[in-house]
Order: sequence, then C-alpha cells, then structure tokens
Amino acid sequence: MNFCSHCAAPVRLEKPKDDNRLRYVCVACHAIHYQNPRIIVGCIPEWQNQILMCRRSIEPRHGLWTVPAGFMENGETVEQGAMRETLEEANARVDIIELFTLCSVSHINQVLLLFRAQLLDLDFYPGHESLETRLMSAEEIPWDQLAFTMIKNSLHHYFNDRKQGHFQLHRQHLP
Amino acid sequence: MNFCSHCAAPVRLEKPKDDNRLRYVCVACHAIHYQNPRIIVGCIPEWQNQILMCRRSIEPRHGLWTVPAGFMENGETVEQGAMRETLEEANARVDIIELFTLCSVSHINQVLLLFRAQLLDLDFYPGHESLETRLMSAEEIPWDQLAFTMIKNSLHHYFNDRKQGHFQLHRQHLP
Repeated sequence: MNFCSHCAAPVRLEKPKDDNRLRYVCVACHAIHYQNPRIIVGCIPEWQNQILMCRRSIEPRHGLWTVPAGFMENGETVEQGAMRETLEEANARVDIIELFTLCSVSHINQVLLLFRAQLLDLDFYPGHESLETRLMSAEEIPWDQLAFTMIKNSLHHYFNDRKQGHFQLHRQHLP
Repeated sequence: MNFCSHCAAPVRLEKPKDDNRLRYVCVACHAIHYQNPRIIVGCIPEWQNQILMCRRSIEPRHGLWTVPAGFMENGETVEQGAMRETLEEANARVDIIELFTLCSVSHINQVLLLFRAQLLDLDFYPGHESLETRLMSAEEIPWDQLAFTMIKNSLHHYFNDRKQGHFQLHRQHLP
C-alpha cells in the first residue's frame, strides 16, 4: 500500500492514537487503512462413503486436488459462501451439515472455515476453475497430489473421524 | 474507494475476466482491489457460574455492556485474537475452551467467532476501551443494556446451554 484509496495522497506507517499497531495512515486526510485476515469458506461434500474433490485448473497449485473452497465475499454468510464456491467450482448443490474445520493460517493472514455438507445429486461437473471433479473414498484420495496443507490436514481428520463414527470440530493453526 | 492504493490512479467498478462480481479495478495499473468480510474474535470468559462482562468506553454503543471482542489482526490465530481482545479490554487472562458462536452479520460484512474461555484469575480491570469490568451470573446480565444483538443472542444461547448442561456450537445469521 502506497497511496490513500480515499484521496490519493501518500500513506505512511504510523501508530494511531489509542492503537498499539502500525497502520497505513494517509498524510493528507488521515484515513486509517486497516488490513485484516481474509476468510476462506468451503465444504467437504459427502455422498455415501465418498466426498467430492476438484482438480484445480488455476494457479496456485494448478493440476492438484482440493475440496471446493474460496474467498468469502461481502454480503453473504459463511454457509452461503461455502455453497457458492461448491457451485462455482463443481456445479454441485449441497446442504450444509456442520462446521468441521476452523484453521488459522497466520503467515498468509487467512482463516479457513470448512463445513461438512450433503451433496444433493450427482449432476456435478467441473466449473471454470476445475479440470476435473470426482467422488472419492478415503482409499482414492491422492494424498501426494493435494493442493493445500490445510485441506490435507482436514481430510485426514475427516476420514479418521468417520472411522471413529463421530465427527467433531477441528481447530488448527498453520503457522 | 476512489483511488488505487498501489499507483494513485482512479479506480472504477468493473467485472474482471473470469469473475462474476464488480470489483474496484485501477484504470492505470489494472490492480484489482478485492473487499472481503472482516472477522470479529472474542470470548465468554467463565468463572464458576459467572462470566466477565465489559461496559464500553468507546463508540459505537458507549456505556453499554458486551463481552471482550474486536477485529482479528493480521499475523494471529483466531484464538490468539480472542485472548488479545480479552487482555486489552479487561486486562484478563483466559484459556480458550471451544468455539461457541459462529455468526455472519452480512449487512456489515462481518463474521463473529466467539469462544468459551476459562478466566485464569480475578486480577482483571477495565482496559482503555472499557468503563467497567464485572463478573455476572445469568440473573445479573443487563439484557436491555447490551451493546450488540449478536452478543445478546450468543449470551441467550450460552445461559440456555448451561442450564441444559451441554454446550454446543451455535451458527447464526444476522441479516
């Protein structure tokens, strides 16, 4: 950040009154430009003993597998965001069941909220951010071709919980 | 948003390629300036049958009561954020127990994550954003002087769950 998005004057890092952190503050209009973590919402769409996976057609991690997830948008709920991402990436309709993963990825200022969800039908197909969409059982997951560590961790917990016959919320931290 | 924070040229609302939403895009350097929901982290600090409440010394809702909570900062986890807010607003030390509320407040683009937490000692006192800090039982909560609807809803669920003898995660939507 170099310039104020309100008035176009330069910004500089300084500690506002009653604050204890450096913020970008405009030298002209004194607007404070806060920067905060962003939310990734997504889901694990379930169909019997399988889940719906997507192979990415975009960077980062082109060609690798993940579950439907992406940045939460303004004006929606976390559940609506997870459902929208599932529709966009896999043209799949789901009902949200419950929150499964809450993962802080602090080095990139992201928080992942991953829900278990019920896939409602089998009429899914790749959206423009996916090369391929496929139902997979635990044995079919390509563990060495997963796109993101936070998703890999979540899927490990998921299939482990399923084996135990009891799903619970997993809180994680990826430093 | 009027100007590009990278190069100070004007921005205009347009739909980037492969996107389906209007974004602020710089007319000169073409940087896309995404805007996303922000996370509020906080906790319900427990001490026996009471919880720690704070009376706000700042706007909005000066003079009204709430639990310690505030904007999550870059570089921290959701749990660290909730503990930091509790320290800043009430000078209180807590251990996080579990997530209690996940509330999307879509009209103001916020997501609230509220944890149950164990208050570790009674050496708390008002931080500079609080006029007063006080332990309260269910009967002592000033229900008509609470600062935020999302906190009021959470505290209703909290004392109801406690009466039932079983806490669970509450997902809410405040449109």
